[in-house]
This record gives sequence, C-alpha cells and structure tokens, in this order.
Amino acid sequence: MRFLIPLISSSITSGHYRITSRLLSAHLTKPQLSTLHPFFNYQPPSMAASEESLRKALAEKQSAVEAHGNAVRALKAAKATKQEIDAAIEALNSLKLEKSSIEKQLQAAVSGSDGDGALSREAFRQAAVNTLERRLFYIPSFKIYRGVAGLYDYGPPGCAVKSNVLAFWRQHFVLEENMLEVDCPCVTPEVVLKASGHVDKFTDLMVKDEKTGTCYRADHLLKDFCNEKLQKDLTISAEKAAELKHVLATLDDLSAEALGAKIKEYGITAPDTKNPLSDPYPFNLMFQTSIGPSGLSPGYMRPETAQGIFVNFKDLYYYNGNKLPFAAAQIGQAFRNEISPRQGLLRVREFTLAEIEHFVDPEDKSHPKYSQVVDLEFLMFPRDEQMSGQSAKKIRLGDAVSKGTVNNETLGYFIGRVYLFLTRLGIDKDRLRFRQHLANEMAHYAADCWDAEIECSYGWIECVGIADRSAYDLCAHSDKSGVPLVAAEKFSEPREVEKLVIAPVKKELGLAFKGSQKNVVEALEAMNEKEALEMKAALESKGEVEFYVCTLGKNVPIKKNMVSISKEKKKEHQRVFTPSVIEPSFGIGRIIYCLFEHSFYTRPSKAGDEQLNVFRFPPLVAPIKCTVFPLVQNQQYEDIAKVISKSLTTAGISHKIDITGTSIGKRYARTDELGVPFAITVDSTKDVTIRERDSKLQVRVGVEEAALVVKSVTDGLRTWEDVWEKYPHHTSGSADD
Amino acid sequence: MRFLIPLISSSITSGHYRITSRLLSAHLTKPQLSTLHPFFNYQPPSMAASEESLRKALAEKQSAVEAHGNAVRALKAAKATKQEIDAAIEALNSLKLEKSSIEKQLQAAVSGSDGDGALSREAFRQAAVNTLERRLFYIPSFKIYRGVAGLYDYGPPGCAVKSNVLAFWRQHFVLEENMLEVDCPCVTPEVVLKASGHVDKFTDLMVKDEKTGTCYRADHLLKDFCNEKLQKDLTISAEKAAELKHVLATLDDLSAEALGAKIKEYGITAPDTKNPLSDPYPFNLMFQTSIGPSGLSPGYMRPETAQGIFVNFKDLYYYNGNKLPFAAAQIGQAFRNEISPRQGLLRVREFTLAEIEHFVDPEDKSHPKYSQVVDLEFLMFPRDEQMSGQSAKKIRLGDAVSKGTVNNETLGYFIGRVYLFLTRLGIDKDRLRFRQHLANEMAHYAADCWDAEIECSYGWIECVGIADRSAYDLCAHSDKSGVPLVAAEKFSEPREVEKLVIAPVKKELGLAFKGSQKNVVEALEAMNEKEALEMKAALESKGEVEFYVCTLGKNVPIKKNMVSISKEKKKEHQRVFTPSVIEPSFGIGRIIYCLFEHSFYTRPSKAGDEQLNVFRFPPLVAPIKCTVFPLVQNQQYEDIAKVISKSLTTAGISHKIDITGTSIGKRYARTDELGVPFAITVDSTKDVTIRERDSKLQVRVGVEEAALVVKSVTDGLRTWEDVWEKYPHHTSGSADD
Repeated sequence: MRFLIPLISSSITSGHYRITSRLLSAHLTKPQLSTLHPFFNYQPPSMAASEESLRKALAEKQSAVEAHGNAVRALKAAKATKQEIDAAIEALNSLKLEKSSIEKQLQAAVSGSDGDGALSREAFRQAAVNTLERRLFYIPSFKIYRGVAGLYDYGPPGCAVKSNVLAFWRQHFVLEENMLEVDCPCVTPEVVLKASGHVDKFTDLMVKDEKTGTCYRADHLLKDFCNEKLQKDLTISAEKAAELKHVLATLDDLSAEALGAKIKEYGITAPDTKNPLSDPYPFNLMFQTSIGPSGLSPGYMRPETAQGIFVNFKDLYYYNGNKLPFAAAQIGQAFRNEISPRQGLLRVREFTLAEIEHFVDPEDKSHPKYSQVVDLEFLMFPRDEQMSGQSAKKIRLGDAVSKGTVNNETLGYFIGRVYLFLTRLGIDKDRLRFRQHLANEMAHYAADCWDAEIECSYGWIECVGIADRSAYDLCAHSDKSGVPLVAAEKFSEPREVEKLVIAPVKKELGLAFKGSQKNVVEALEAMNEKEALEMKAALESKGEVEFYVCTLGKNVPIKKNMVSISKEKKKEHQRVFTPSVIEPSFGIGRIIYCLFEHSFYTRPSKAGDEQLNVFRFPPLVAPIKCTVFPLVQNQQYEDIAKVISKSLTTAGISHKIDITGTSIGKRYARTDELGVPFAITVDSTKDVTIRERDSKLQVRVGVEEAALVVKSVTDGLRTWEDVWEKYPHHTSGSADD
Repeated sequence: MRFLIPLISSSITSGHYRITSRLLSAHLTKPQLSTLHPFFNYQPPSMAASEESLRKALAEKQSAVEAHGNAVRALKAAKATKQEIDAAIEALNSLKLEKSSIEKQLQAAVSGSDGDGALSREAFRQAAVNTLERRLFYIPSFKIYRGVAGLYDYGPPGCAVKSNVLAFWRQHFVLEENMLEVDCPCVTPEVVLKASGHVDKFTDLMVKDEKTGTCYRADHLLKDFCNEKLQKDLTISAEKAAELKHVLATLDDLSAEALGAKIKEYGITAPDTKNPLSDPYPFNLMFQTSIGPSGLSPGYMRPETAQGIFVNFKDLYYYNGNKLPFAAAQIGQAFRNEISPRQGLLRVREFTLAEIEHFVDPEDKSHPKYSQVVDLEFLMFPRDEQMSGQSAKKIRLGDAVSKGTVNNETLGYFIGRVYLFLTRLGIDKDRLRFRQHLANEMAHYAADCWDAEIECSYGWIECVGIADRSAYDLCAHSDKSGVPLVAAEKFSEPREVEKLVIAPVKKELGLAFKGSQKNVVEALEAMNEKEALEMKAALESKGEVEFYVCTLGKNVPIKKNMVSISKEKKKEHQRVFTPSVIEPSFGIGRIIYCLFEHSFYTRPSKAGDEQLNVFRFPPLVAPIKCTVFPLVQNQQYEDIAKVISKSLTTAGISHKIDITGTSIGKRYARTDELGVPFAITVDSTKDVTIRERDSKLQVRVGVEEAALVVKSVTDGLRTWEDVWEKYPHHTSGSADD
C-alpha cells in the first residue's frame, strides 16, 4: 500500500504518513497512473536551482582543487622555487576554502532552509516526548515485557485528553449535525473486506534480509537511501541528485519489480546486517484471524470503521425516513499490522478512528448549513499550487468552492467544520493546512479529496482526510452482497423519460461469433448513450461497424441485424440511484499527538535555574481542569480543600487534590506539566486563590464560589479575562516559588 | 472454560452465563474442587419433594394402568360378561384420568412454578426484541452478508444509550473516585496472556460432528439433553431425574473424559444431523493473530481489559505518588471466539468491558468512603442461603460486612457503588441481586466474589463481577516479567521485626542425599513459619525427623546438623508487599440488554385497537432527550421548531425534529418507542406544549423557555413533578391521538 505519500512533505519529514482508511483509493488508481510519473520538484524552484548550481560549482571546485593539487606536486617534482611552490599552495588553499564554503552552503540547502531548524525541532520533540512519557500521557504498551513496536497505552492524563477530544467530536459532529452514530465490531468476516478491496489490495511491499529473515518496507529502504545520499553525500553530481529526487517523488508509483530493480541498482542491503535483500513482495497489512472454532471462516481486524457504515446503509436510510442527505458516524478501534512501525504515536498498529459517511444525491451536493462556514479563511494548498511549486496560502472557503477549487458545497462545508473542530481543540491555525490530493493520489472514482495536515516536529502530518468518494463503496457492497444499496427520489408527478434501449440480437450474434457471443453481447450492452447513438448512426449509414470488445481484446464487425438501438419514452414515478458519499475520516491519535506538540512550551522557573514544562491545553481538552492545594499542611485548610473538591465533583469538573507538603511553586510546576488550566490554593478559611496556568495571574474568590468560577470558565460561559476583571487580584507573585 | 455456571439459576434459565474476565479464576481451582461435587437441589425443597413424589406416583399409576389394561384384555380373552368387562374398563379409564392428572401436575412442577410464566417471558422478549431490532437499537452485524453469529452493531439509538451508560460510568466511578483511567490496545502479545493463564486455560470443551465437522460446546449438548429430558419426558423415574439434576449441578466440574463418557452413556448425537460426536477436547476462546510481518510473534485479541492495567501497575503506582490504595480503570473492547454463540446480546464474540482494579494493602482493606454506602439495603444472596436452598433476601450492606458475609469494607463499598450505578441507570432494584460465589466457583487465591445478577427473560444474568483477587495477578506478572510489581509502606521510624531464617546446611545434605540434595533444600526453604518451628522443636527433642519432599514424592530423614532454624531480629525501614486487587468488572452490553428489557412496556393506543411500545429510559440514558414537532405543517411553526432545536443544541441536549405531516399521536408513538422522555409540540407562536412520555401529562411553556425546562429535567436539576407544579397544564388530551 504505497499510496498516499504526501510528496510535498518528503523534503521535510523523514517519513511518509498514511492515515486511516480511504487511502486505499489511491491504490485502486494504479493502472491509470502508470503513464503519469511527472517529475515534481517540491522545493521552491529558487532553492532547488541554487542546490543544483551549488552541486555544479562544488564539482567544478573539486576538479580545480585536484588540478591545482597536481600542479603543486608537479612543481615540487620539478624542484620549482620555494616562491613558486608557496604561491601555488596558497592558491590551492584558497580554492579549498572556496570549496568548503560551497560545501557548507550545499549542506544548508539540502537540509532544508534551516539546518538549525531541524536540530531545534528534534530538541523540542525530545523535551515534549520526555514530558509526555514521564507524566504517563502515553506509555509503550506491555513495557514490562519490553513492549511491542507500534502499540501504545494512554495513561491517565492521555486517556482523559482522548476522552475529551472524542466527547467534543460527538458534540461538534454527531449532535450538532444530527448524525446517525453506529458502533460495529472490529472482527470482520472476509467477504466484507473482499468487497471493499482490502483483502486484495491493502498491502505494502516488503523485503526480507535473506539470512536473518528480518522484514523491511521496501519503499522505506529506498527512501532512506535517497535521503541519506542527498543530504550527506555532497560529492554526487547534480544529475545524480536529480535522479534521486525523481525516485523520491515517484516512490508511490513504483511497481514491485521497479522497486526491486532500484534496490539492486543502488546496492541497498539490510540496514542492520548488510546482508542481501529478497525481491519486494506484497504483505497484507490486516491482522488476520479465524471466526468460530472450525477454522473455516477467515476474518480480519478491521483496518477502518467505514465498512460497518456502508453495509448498514439500507437500514440507516430507512431509519432516516428514506430521505437524503444524511450522515452516519462511527468512533472505534482500527488495526494495521505495519511492517516496521516508527515515529511514535504517528504510525501505530492499533488506533482510534472517527469516521463520517455523509450520503448525498450525486445531482445535488449543496448543503443547508454551507452559509455558516463560507466566510472562514485558512491555509489551503490546492493541487495547482503544489504542481507549480508554490506554498499553501490563506483562502476564503467560499471562494475556493465558488471557483471550483473545492468540488462542491458539502465537501466545502465539511472542510470548514473540520477547521473549526481542530482549532477549537487547540491546534495552531498557522500550522494547519488543507491540502488537495494530486491527480495521482486520488482514486479514479473520487470527485475530490482534501487532507487536513498539521505541522509538527515530524513535518506536515495528515490527520483528517475529507474525500468525495462518489458511489464507489455502496456499489462495491451492492455487487458483492446482491442487496441493492440505493436511494430513491419520489416524483410528485410521474415524469416522462427517454430511455436508451440496446437489444443485441442473440441469434445473429451467435451465428457470427459462436463461442465469443457472450463477450460481444456484454460489450454491446455496456455501451454508454453516446457510444450507442454513434453506433446506431453508423449502422444506419454504413450497415456495418468495427466494434472493440475489451474482453476479447480485438475489434469485431457488427452488422445492422445484430443489434437494435432505440430510445423509448417511459413514465417514471421515482428516480433510483446510488448515493454519493462524502467522507471525513479522523485519525484521533495523530490529532492528539499534534495537539500535544502545539500545546507544549517551556519557561524559566522564577529562580531562572531550570526550564519548566507547560501544556497550554484549552479547558475543553485539559485532562484535569483544576487542582486544589492547601497552602500549608493544616487540618483546617485540608477540610476546606475537601469541601471544594466535593463541589467540583458535583459540578462534573475533573480535578485533583494535592495535600503533599511540597512547596506551592513545585506543585504549580507539576500541575502545569499536566496542562491543568486552573489551581485553587486554600490559603485562608474564607477566600481562596485561583491561578491561571499560562498567565500565572491569580484572583481571590470566596470558598463557596470557587468551584462555580472554575466551572463557568471551563464550560466556556465566561473567559479568564472576565474573571480577572471581576475578582480582586492576588498581588503577591511569590506563591509561584 | 466451563467455570462460572450460576448453578442456582439452571432451573430458570435456558443457558448459563459467563461474563467478562476474571471467571478464569474458577478454572484455576479445578484440582481443589475434584473432591466436592455436592448435589445441590436448587428448587425450593418443598417443590423438589413434590416433583419427586409425583414422579413416583406417576410411575405407580403407569404400572397400575398397564396391569389393569392386561386385566381387561384377559377378561375379553376369557369372554367375561359385558358387565365385568365394562366395570374393568371404567376402572381403567379412571386410572388413566388419575395418571393424566398426575402428569399435568408433574408438567407444572418441572417447568418451574409457572409454566405460563415461561411463555409470557418468551412473548415479552419477542415484543421487546422486535422493537429493538426494528428501531435499530441493535442490528446483527454484516446483515447484508447474512451476518456472523455473536456479532452485533449498535444502531443510532443503541449507540446513544451505550455512550450515555459509559459517560455515566466515567462520572460515577472514574471521576467521583479519582480513578486513573488507562486505554490499552486490544492486540496483545502472547507472553502477557501466558502469564495471566489465558493461553493455557481459557478454553471450552468442544465436540465435533464426526461427519460434517460442525462444532458444539460439549457442556451445552449435555445440558440441553438433561433439561429436555427433565422437562419433556415425564416417564423417567425419580432416580433418573435426580441423576440428571446432579449432572446439571456438576456440569462445571466435569473433566473432558467425564463429559465424553456422559455424552456416550446418554447416546447424545449432533443436534442437526444426528451423526456421532467426537470426544470432547479443549478449544481456546481467544482470537489468535500474528503481530508484525514475520509470523514469529503470536498475539491475541485481549479477552479482558484487566491485564493492560496489571502490566502498568508500577507506573500507575508511581503516578499516584507511590501511595495505596488507588484504583485504575479501563473501558474497551474484549473478544471471545465463542464456539456457538446464542442468546442475542448476552453471549457475543466482541463486547465492551469496563473494568476497575482497586489496589489495596492486604493488611488494610478499609475504605474511607465506606460510611456512604453502609445503610443501603438490597437483595443479596450469600453462599449459605444458596447452599441451603433459600432465595435472595434484602440485607443492609453494613450488616453483611460487619457479620463477615462480605469479606471486607472495600469489597462492600464497591458492591454498594455498583448497586447505585445500576439502579440509577434504570435497572429495577427488585430484579437485581448480588450473589456470592460458591466455594467451587472461586479461585483458590480469591478472598471473596460477588456477582451483580439482573433478572431478564433469560433468567438471572451475571452483569458485573466484583472480586477480591488478592495478589494473584500482580504476582503472575512479576514472575513472568521479572519486574517486581510491589508497593512499600515506609515506616516513620525503623521497626524491629523478627524474621524466620531457615538455613539448610548444604554440605551435610549433599552427603546424605546426593542427587536429590536440591529438592530437599528447596523443600526446607519453602516451609512456612509453623512448619519450620515444629521441625526445630522436633529436631531439638528427637534429633531427627521424617520430612516429606513433594518433588521427590517421599519422606526423607532430616538430622539436626542438616538445617539451622532460628528467629532473628532485624531493623526494617519499610514493608514491601504485593498489593491485593479488588476488581469490579462490568459487561456493558449485558447491562444495556437488561436495561432494555427493564425499560420496555406496552400500553393500549387511545383507540384501544393496538398495543404501543414504550421504553421508560430515565433521561440519563435515553438516546434522545427530546423531540420537537410542529403540530401542523406550517412555515411559522417550523421556524419556531428550528429556533427551539438550536437552543437545545446549544444546551447540549440531543433531540430530533419531526416535521412530517403524520398525526401527532403517531409521532408520539414513534418517539415513545425510542424512549424519548420529552416531546415539545409547537402549537402556537408563543407557547408550546411539553409532554412527558410515561405519564403522558402535558404542560404549557413559553417558546424561549422550552429548551431550558427540558435541560433542567434531563440534567436532574429538577423533576417532572416540579415542572408539572409550576407550569399551566395542557388539558386537552386529544393530542395523543
């Protein structure tokens, strides 16, 4: 499954990101893509040009250094004067300096515009990940047994963040849009995933170390090789560099054979042992199992939740009063047996998906609430901008839809809703972009696809896919199950329609084509209206036409008496059609990881001797909304803390009491590191101090009011600024130490 | 895994219920149980006695009928007078009548006290299940592909109920008890489930149709045979009936061999084909798969969520500030590859579990919030009552704990909290009981176990298991992983403790026992304090003792010079120990199914011509809280409906607008069938009518107030009675038609 490689990000990220489900789509387009393979240069043209010229300059300088070196040796051999030799050496050294300077420039160019940026991103990630793992936001699963690659647990704060994100997802999508939520099992019988294409096509190409049997993803090895060469080997020629970049850009479209050939050509071996590698072969990424005790019913752990919705279309349509449009939604676990997972929470073997299937009449993709998002403006990265080497830019959603950049209103509506969802969670809007799929990323049946990509230390990560998949999925299950998954538009009055009728005359065809009669009949019946009318005209004028039968792979002569083509008028009471589906699909784990990074920052302690970690989670997603501290260990204060705790519980506000004797500054630091937005310090029996995490500002509030103040802010009924205006300020900043 | 058969319910239910996880426990006790096998007669003694005497009377009457029949034939053969013959026939007929009367009594006795009850339960279930499936509360999964046994989807209303139940579970347990929630993957490597015992012991005994290969659960076939015989065959003797009941009561404890022997003895064949059956053999119930591409790392879909918590104990204990007690919780999918699932939502192959592991110092199982539940009074069914054939009775929780019926305060606290949880959801408290495990149901390491059982049309269903599992699970993972999963109690001052020191003198033992020295050393070191002190005394008095070495299977003579046994005083700064775990484990799907049945009722339509279905869900769990209807199709009313809908959305109240032109009575009926507690009918532009589902009472409320009134009642801030008091009543009841 080497589809969905966000090509544009390959110069930034060290890995490609594939998410969720529907990315199968791109795979199914393979045959159509074989003729494409353009060479996209995704670095801005100016930089790429400079890299190319630097490589050329470096090669020239290298030749010059060698030539001068030889000249110096020749002078020495010829016992030239010291003056002559010294002058030549000086010239050589100056050439070497120039070469070294070009090397540095080239080094900077190939590591992106900011070699330092990459380093600081790495350091930032280390700091964030250390905090996340130490505070149990997540934990490598089964750690005491040395873990399993690609499996992670959410510990208490991570689990709370996840459940907040999912609760908000339900509120924002299911409740506000009146979606039909369903909950289907993970264990899925083979027939369902055969229909969807996963059994046959949901594969990655794999190579094996021929001696140890260790498995690798073939495309990853080739990619790593190319990136390594491009970044570390400054001596390669500009031509070679261009070739490697071409390989990177077309990695997705390489067949098993082509990939194997490249691996051989470049002499790539197993990274750990340097042993030779097998030829690439497809490995299916689904976890396989067996349903029931007989061993005769193969099943898989679902690789996405969408199929559960498609197979229920008929019942859901009925539930919705046989009316379109409607959306169904599902939150649940999905599974992918990755060959060699890397990059922490971003590529895992089990993950939570939240998927929406919005079913709509293909002839009317308007959306009643479209006007609510039309004025949103955010970073979009349409196909054309990617092709011409530009970068993402701010576009008003309404303009993107009206200009046809976004295919239709409903797709646009969901793009807008996804933008609102992500930014309300706390995703930085300047590091969020909507990138349109390129032609070679999309399935042939897809009308349009956009990914919400979030930038983090790994680069731009695909976190939500929003695709108009037309009628593909419902048709696939109709075909396989024999149950028509269709909708009907009832006409208020019967309509007269003209219908094309193609009637092959089987007797004549049988006489003419004998054994191939069936193929010819099928091909005739499969003609679309235009083809049929052209044939009709040709038969009427010429009496015979050449007709290509694809299942025979050749032309056959069709005579006038072999087929009757006509248009007939009929009265129809309804229009029966297969709905289109627009599918926003959310990789919850990826969104949460990006949210962690966007929320993380450090600030110096008051004493300035250390950096303290803070997560600036909005109250909506904060794992704990409030901590309660008695300022000093004292029964009276502890009792008040317990009273406040009880009020918070009643108000449904998750919180934590900390009655350790630790200094209040340390306790604030601990709580900041969990992203707790508010702390209530009990420092008298009448009033308490409420502190806000990011501003560190503090107000004085009566004991009995404290819980309600926190609740009103975490529920979004008022802001911290409102609170700051209303209540007396706590002026001594000393508590923070 | 033929453990946990709720023996007591076997006369009521047609199936045995096993739930969730920890029921593995009973399995591990097998060796200890082999001597038990008491014959429990679980029908009240009086009834059982009457059944036995009826069987005897029936057998006698049958003999009498046969004897008289022979006599009549003899009279006829002997050409006796018509008078004689008629008199004999009359006597025979009267005997037959008596026999028939006894048969009827026996029939009534064996179908329980209420043969009619069973029928009406069946009819009730049919009505409920029809409504549930028709309104998409649940759907057989993959229906268009003819489904898979034991897999179900929740459709929109079922999914909403489930998410409400889980949200309330989080509020009631995780939030109110400050539990540490975690979220671990379903895919689990073999080593973890090897340690927990599942790989070796999580099995059911299976038989195969020898010709077709169809698989059956061996105990189910035997149980069905016995029940069928007991209920339908009135001719079996009282002795035979007792034997069959004994088989039913001891079904759990039968080995594969014993089960096979019974199946042969009774001539049981494959139900579908009547073909002979194979011998029973164990089938592991876990779905197996393979992690990663090599095929060398077997994995399973977890059969419970608890193991994910145990393996994280060390981190969670640290997260909790190295303090006990604390509880961790997890909600998630679990998987069991049942041999032949039946009984709808009650025995499925994939289900949602919510599990709590409360870790506690084994020396202090008090609970700080115990006083909050001490006065609760509800149906409890202690072990002794079960053994003596009594039924469950109302007991004050505090009394059950103080009398030692419930092992400890913490266990009692959780029993109380589970009671509150279930009844607040809408479970009928009169059909909820807490049943203590019998000795042969419990694992040897378990201190005490209670199941929350809910009565539904299938009988008493185990829905929550609450077990004190002592240190078993943490020890198992410590042993397997080599990572100590322990807690420490730091002493404020070092304590002097006396420690038993057993020091085998290896040289002497080597001389005496040569090759078996190691076994003897290990056996000596494994003595407990009592044994060691007895040996010390015996050695001092006699100089030599006989000592049983179990690994050698014989006694060996131990002399005084071979071992030194002493008590030494040591200063200790802390006490290190493995915590006990108290585990409440909730089968969410079973609770939801029972909730469906307890909420379901029918009432006649106003016209009296049909029965209408209603679910009396409390607002807390109702899938939709409110519907909004314009009384007639009219733009003004529709606009107001939309305004109210918007307010409801803002207030976070899930609702549905119904603008179809259907009669208001029909719309109420539709909404009652989904268990929607409130309906707002827009019948003017100023005021609207709010109707409560069960009372059908209606009040008049201003348009702008309507959403808030519904919110206040669904949030539990006031009751419907409060609303009924405050607002003017809508007197015309006609709207209901």
